[in-house]
Amino acid sequence: MAHPNIKDLLERRKQSTATYTPFPLISEITASGEEAVVFRNPCGHSRHEIPGLVSLDHLLGGFTEVMVVHHTDCGTLHFKNEQIKDVLVARGAVQTEVEGMYFGGIDDLEQSVKDDVAILKNSHLMRPELKEQIRGFVFDIQTGKLSEVDL
Amino acid sequence: MAHPNIKDLLERRKQSTATYTPFPLISEITASGEEAVVFRNPCGHSRHEIPGLVSLDHLLGGFTEVMVVHHTDCGTLHFKNEQIKDVLVARGAVQTEVEGMYFGGIDDLEQSVKDDVAILKNSHLMRPELKEQIRGFVFDIQTGKLSEVDL
Repeated sequence: MAHPNIKDLLERRKQSTATYTPFPLISEITASGEEAVVFRNPCGHSRHEIPGLVSLDHLLGGFTEVMVVHHTDCGTLHFKNEQIKDVLVARGAVQTEVEGMYFGGIDDLEQSVKDDVAILKNSHLMRPELKEQIRGFVFDIQTGKLSEVDL
Repeated sequence: MAHPNIKDLLERRKQSTATYTPFPLISEITASGEEAVVFRNPCGHSRHEIPGLVSLDHLLGGFTEVMVVHHTDCGTLHFKNEQIKDVLVARGAVQTEVEGMYFGGIDDLEQSVKDDVAILKNSHLMRPELKEQIRGFVFDIQTGKLSEVDL
């Protein structure tokens, strides 16, 4: 089967619009507090998300806790950062430019969770009270179990 | 009502584990192609996602299209970047450090979609064939409608 293309996704969206339940507005979220905010990126790495996390923490009146969650069989376990750099250099990128970039590839899931929690805890941009409430987890995509990582 | 805390979320997860349907493995996704990959961050900004997008494009054998989707009443319409910089400087961050950072705040949703599509199209790290297939959309959270933005 082919990947769903934009045309397929637009058709699905049109169908589901008929039975659509509106998302809450920001003003409603702020008032009710009934939401958890989700950031989603390859691996669940934290380093590129700090600006957005800081912004929403401020906008929404202060998060109380942060969960860093990575999952088993993550795509980032299946490639190496050096490999992506080589692909980009072959595509015409300058070696010195990609040298300092982080492409998300990891070797060890638990260690990666620890590293990503540490990045948040060590950032002086994060609110100090929030930094005390950061925990790390591994989600097993085959069993659905969420296990906390000892930091 | 209070924000759900990690304890609540872990309890929910425990309950839903009983009826859990496993996610496909990367090897299955690559073979079947039945997945769209979702990146989620405040506003749906593209600039911080390029390294991960490039990595997964390579790992999964090449995306065919990219949708940039922002939504109405986005949190990033409700704060200014300068405001977040001031918060951080008051928290002890160095002015020169936060000066160059982008916190995601926007003034105009459609313009922001155009800007984020342009960032991807202008990146020489993105695969040229994929750059030709990038489209921008606004999702209306009150009606569920997805409208394409003329670029």
